[in-house]
Amino acid sequence: MAPHPFKTLSLEETRLARDVILAQHPETVIDFREIYLQEPEKELMKQYLDLEHAARPGASPTSKRPPRLAKCQYDVIGGDKIPEYHESVVDLELKRRIKHEVIGKEFHATLTMWEFGELVEACKRSKEFQEAIKEFVLPDGFELVVEPWPYGGLDFGAENRRYFQGLCFAQDTRNGNPDSNFYAYPLPLIPVMDAHNKEIVRIDRLATGGKGDALDAQTHSPRVLDHCASAEYVPELLPGGTRKDMKAINITQPDGPSFKVTDESLVEWQKWRFRVSFNPREGAVLHDVHYDGRSVMYRLSVSEMTVPYADARAPFHRKQAFDFGDGGAGNCANNLSLGCDCLGVIKYFDAVVIGSDGEPKEHPNVICLHEQDNGIGWKHTNWRTGRAVVTRMRELVVQFIITLANYEYVFAYKLDTSGGITVEVRATGIVSVVNIDPGKTSEYGNVVSNGVLAQNHQHIFALRIDPAVDGHKNSVSIEESHTAPWNKETNPNGNFYEIRKTLVNRSTGVDAAPEHNRTFKIINQNKINPLSGNPVSYKFQPPPTQKLLATPGSIQYQRALFTKHHVWVTKYRENELYAAGRFTLQSQLEVGGVHDMAQRNDEVVDDDIVIWNTFGLTHNPRVEDWPVMPCDIFQVHFKPADFFTGNPAIDVPSTKNNSSVLVEKEACCQKL
Amino acid sequence: MAPHPFKTLSLEETRLARDVILAQHPETVIDFREIYLQEPEKELMKQYLDLEHAARPGASPTSKRPPRLAKCQYDVIGGDKIPEYHESVVDLELKRRIKHEVIGKEFHATLTMWEFGELVEACKRSKEFQEAIKEFVLPDGFELVVEPWPYGGLDFGAENRRYFQGLCFAQDTRNGNPDSNFYAYPLPLIPVMDAHNKEIVRIDRLATGGKGDALDAQTHSPRVLDHCASAEYVPELLPGGTRKDMKAINITQPDGPSFKVTDESLVEWQKWRFRVSFNPREGAVLHDVHYDGRSVMYRLSVSEMTVPYADARAPFHRKQAFDFGDGGAGNCANNLSLGCDCLGVIKYFDAVVIGSDGEPKEHPNVICLHEQDNGIGWKHTNWRTGRAVVTRMRELVVQFIITLANYEYVFAYKLDTSGGITVEVRATGIVSVVNIDPGKTSEYGNVVSNGVLAQNHQHIFALRIDPAVDGHKNSVSIEESHTAPWNKETNPNGNFYEIRKTLVNRSTGVDAAPEHNRTFKIINQNKINPLSGNPVSYKFQPPPTQKLLATPGSIQYQRALFTKHHVWVTKYRENELYAAGRFTLQSQLEVGGVHDMAQRNDEVVDDDIVIWNTFGLTHNPRVEDWPVMPCDIFQVHFKPADFFTGNPAIDVPSTKNNSSVLVEKEACCQKL
Repeated sequence: MAPHPFKTLSLEETRLARDVILAQHPETVIDFREIYLQEPEKELMKQYLDLEHAARPGASPTSKRPPRLAKCQYDVIGGDKIPEYHESVVDLELKRRIKHEVIGKEFHATLTMWEFGELVEACKRSKEFQEAIKEFVLPDGFELVVEPWPYGGLDFGAENRRYFQGLCFAQDTRNGNPDSNFYAYPLPLIPVMDAHNKEIVRIDRLATGGKGDALDAQTHSPRVLDHCASAEYVPELLPGGTRKDMKAINITQPDGPSFKVTDESLVEWQKWRFRVSFNPREGAVLHDVHYDGRSVMYRLSVSEMTVPYADARAPFHRKQAFDFGDGGAGNCANNLSLGCDCLGVIKYFDAVVIGSDGEPKEHPNVICLHEQDNGIGWKHTNWRTGRAVVTRMRELVVQFIITLANYEYVFAYKLDTSGGITVEVRATGIVSVVNIDPGKTSEYGNVVSNGVLAQNHQHIFALRIDPAVDGHKNSVSIEESHTAPWNKETNPNGNFYEIRKTLVNRSTGVDAAPEHNRTFKIINQNKINPLSGNPVSYKFQPPPTQKLLATPGSIQYQRALFTKHHVWVTKYRENELYAAGRFTLQSQLEVGGVHDMAQRNDEVVDDDIVIWNTFGLTHNPRVEDWPVMPCDIFQVHFKPADFFTGNPAIDVPSTKNNSSVLVEKEACCQKL
Repeated sequence: MAPHPFKTLSLEETRLARDVILAQHPETVIDFREIYLQEPEKELMKQYLDLEHAARPGASPTSKRPPRLAKCQYDVIGGDKIPEYHESVVDLELKRRIKHEVIGKEFHATLTMWEFGELVEACKRSKEFQEAIKEFVLPDGFELVVEPWPYGGLDFGAENRRYFQGLCFAQDTRNGNPDSNFYAYPLPLIPVMDAHNKEIVRIDRLATGGKGDALDAQTHSPRVLDHCASAEYVPELLPGGTRKDMKAINITQPDGPSFKVTDESLVEWQKWRFRVSFNPREGAVLHDVHYDGRSVMYRLSVSEMTVPYADARAPFHRKQAFDFGDGGAGNCANNLSLGCDCLGVIKYFDAVVIGSDGEPKEHPNVICLHEQDNGIGWKHTNWRTGRAVVTRMRELVVQFIITLANYEYVFAYKLDTSGGITVEVRATGIVSVVNIDPGKTSEYGNVVSNGVLAQNHQHIFALRIDPAVDGHKNSVSIEESHTAPWNKETNPNGNFYEIRKTLVNRSTGVDAAPEHNRTFKIINQNKINPLSGNPVSYKFQPPPTQKLLATPGSIQYQRALFTKHHVWVTKYRENELYAAGRFTLQSQLEVGGVHDMAQRNDEVVDDDIVIWNTFGLTHNPRVEDWPVMPCDIFQVHFKPADFFTGNPAIDVPSTKNNSSVLVEKEACCQKL
């Protein structure tokens, strides 16, 4: 049977796409970057999904099936010429390339893991770099580690070649443990590689000074690591070992999970029904999300994230990652582990990765799916009778975790029993650090360990919400609550407050306004709630987190225009998936991102629209963030508002869970 | 052995206090309201705790023990005279009243459950009320229910007697189920009782109109319930029953809990050590919170909450509850139930309640203590070696739940393995509703069911944080992050942003400012972090929720001045525990609340200070909130910031949990 149109490409499909591309480029060297599902056009999918939902459960419509397409991204190598970057679309049934685009040299492809290896090799080959390293006296038993990074925003006027940079550290090898934490020993130099000729073209020298030192002062001694201190996190290297008094909490589901997964893509659970897919750029994506047979969203994804750093000293102004556009969140996904990343009864989804030869292999356990209890869902006690009815909140979690060099993000879509969807991000991992001279402090960050300055930075995420609230024609209504003036007729006692509703007519950006309780309702004007008389809707309150702090006009600012507002409303267009635009690597300006989409001034009333939510954190590190930071947690909540005719969780059983027990007095409780 | 000074009074101690009071008032009728622990003066406790912490674990200092005191609140009844309300303090060792205060008639005692019963009886006796009820034709098999409520803010110029009001509903008794939901059938009249002579003194008529109707229009028909609809929540009355496809999630701790409870008050868990107590007004309170032998907080409590309603029509302007000051959160605490309110291995704490005769009895299971898993705590994957180290976040939860007539709140203090404390509030229960004519809608709320208008309202909470960050001399530093202007010397590339720190010098109120990432650090200037050079601190970001919306100068506004700012910093004074003042029932103005405390303009640098955080929600009901609303969840996070010399959770084991399993293909996953 043919795969569902939203299903991630199989190994076979990926290989077929590769072969079609190779056949198009005979006698040519091709370095593949990515091959993944090109999702069908929405207009075709609407027809397909209408048929699918009208058919009996499990059945798939066989007519009206959109073509199965693969997006192929690759470099065409041609001798001394700078490689050309191509993006093609292959029709897998026709076995034919149906679209072919040669990307202009002003844009750079998302980086690929094999490019990281090239930087490390180039450093080994570079005499200049080897000489530079010799300026430093590493402690006995320490060895150099080069950590590849994207180059960051290209300086104004700089030649636009493809660069990589390496952050340098030293690893204590005396313990023989390859996971000894080298980030604790930062070296103040950065080799820069030209990706075309694979040569180190420059070595940037880093300032290690503190308050009062000039931006470019070279103040460090050759023994620049001597004042640094070990900061291990793998348990066998912890000086005191791990704590012994934490007893197990086991989460078991003796009757199995309440969810059902069909065809490795369709998930059904507690009246929810959706598809899940995975791609190299966005990671896990939800499609065609329904509750109780009613459509809620067409597509939900994390679209982008930027991490700009605030250290004023060159070259740190270039330190700004776009973890989705530069590196690919899906590319960087962890292979999740039972009983560690996820507890309970777990369903894992696999993806496919390719090598530079285009040969696909399985990328196992990149998504985990599981249920969890999230405390009390609803409760009421009748104080007259003493009868309490209490239900638990159950969530279905679709989780993936990415590692970008030093840093980790845990992304989760949580669907719950009361019709809500929560998007959660946890930020963890090792904060990015640089060397600082002994005894100094800095206005660019916090000294989290001896010799280690954790630079101030921000993380700003963009969610892409492609809604389908009871159909594809949706609008956005902004609702606020306002103090009302005294008025004998309408507010004689001063307790009235006014609800103001504003329809978003044209594509635009809007900010959060918690002082007005500003709430965004994604409404369907054509479907009226029979009880309240209001249009059915899903609502959210954008977290009013701080926006990008970089100075307007700076490169950091220009390349992340999507951060200018907390919420954007745009009209749907095919292939507009990325908040900061298709190409972020080394960008100087956001091109084709949500800022440009909004500028079109499209009508967005009762139409196929997309809502974007940006949120994040200003992360001025604490000492407690070292060496691995405890998760910072962010959530955005989407809740039905007059979508249903009552609490959708009212029929959740209030059954007592019989596995809970009273603490035994002798186990824990001592009476004095 | 003598009880610890923070330990909740025992039954015996309560009875002893009662006897001392009764002996002071011979030949007099006394109606007791509350008897509970009068916490020792802080100066005495500081000395005591210093000795306690210096002693070996488990040992209690025997000298320097503060007197064991009981606070006694009672009415002295004297014939036709309006009862006098007294507050006394009894020394339980001396068996002597050591303080006695007769409260002026301008203030009213917190209400007591036995007063609710009196209102119901008064309605039965009142001819006027019985006549008024006859104006309505109740459907066959329906019976009147009177729901007692505090009277609310006294109108300007009204005589200040003690009143109660009753919201009227009808219950469908045909199903024979006493938990049939009567809130679905609201009647448009409110009897008002004078609490002294226990007579119904007035019956307020409620408007049932909608948009365009005059505020006082009496538009309802005698058959005012005919258009209302059943809205049951007890499982046996649900038309479709409960859902059948939710399989159990069991949380088990085969090795027992990781916590230890000593003397029913001292809790030790994962380097945390604190006392827990319970009182009728605040519910559960944490005392003397330490981490790894270092002091963090002296006392942490939920101090107040106000719930003002926005319906402009009299008498709804009086609808404004102060659930802590009016009703007493501890008084209204649920008796928690294993496997329903709390999962896992549970330790319950009991409290004591008294009758109007002062006779104490046990109030069982008012607090539950348990551990829970909260997902990934920290993680790092070394992408070179593929080695992932992932730890779980473990939380210890101190939870209590209160019911106030129709509504429920779930309060939880959560202490975690990374040194953080989260205060969580969940709002659930049944929204307050009034009758609305068929087919109408209203600007005062949302029609959530036929004939049922859920009025717009707010919930604004006040936390009281009595910090002791490495000692009692603390200060508050406000830290903000700001965009920096272009500057060749300091910001040549536009990526720098500036951190601004402001010390709070004098007692004051300050608002949240998420646009500046405004963070409040409770610092100890005398203890410097050896790594960062910053003062040790605990920080929090106040949730920037909407403040009180009532028109300035209105009674709703005047009696809740604590809502004017998100954060208040005041100098510690003995017995200042309540954000809206000691007496909130029928208040017209907040007296002795945090607004007054701040007005003193006390110095608050390097001193014994108190921080208050107000946060809440503007609740414009959804249809989904009916008949019992899914929890709305709010959290405030306190985190160490340069308090420790590294991540305190770094030694949490990354052990794999062996009870997690892969989903079985046949159980859930179907391949097409």
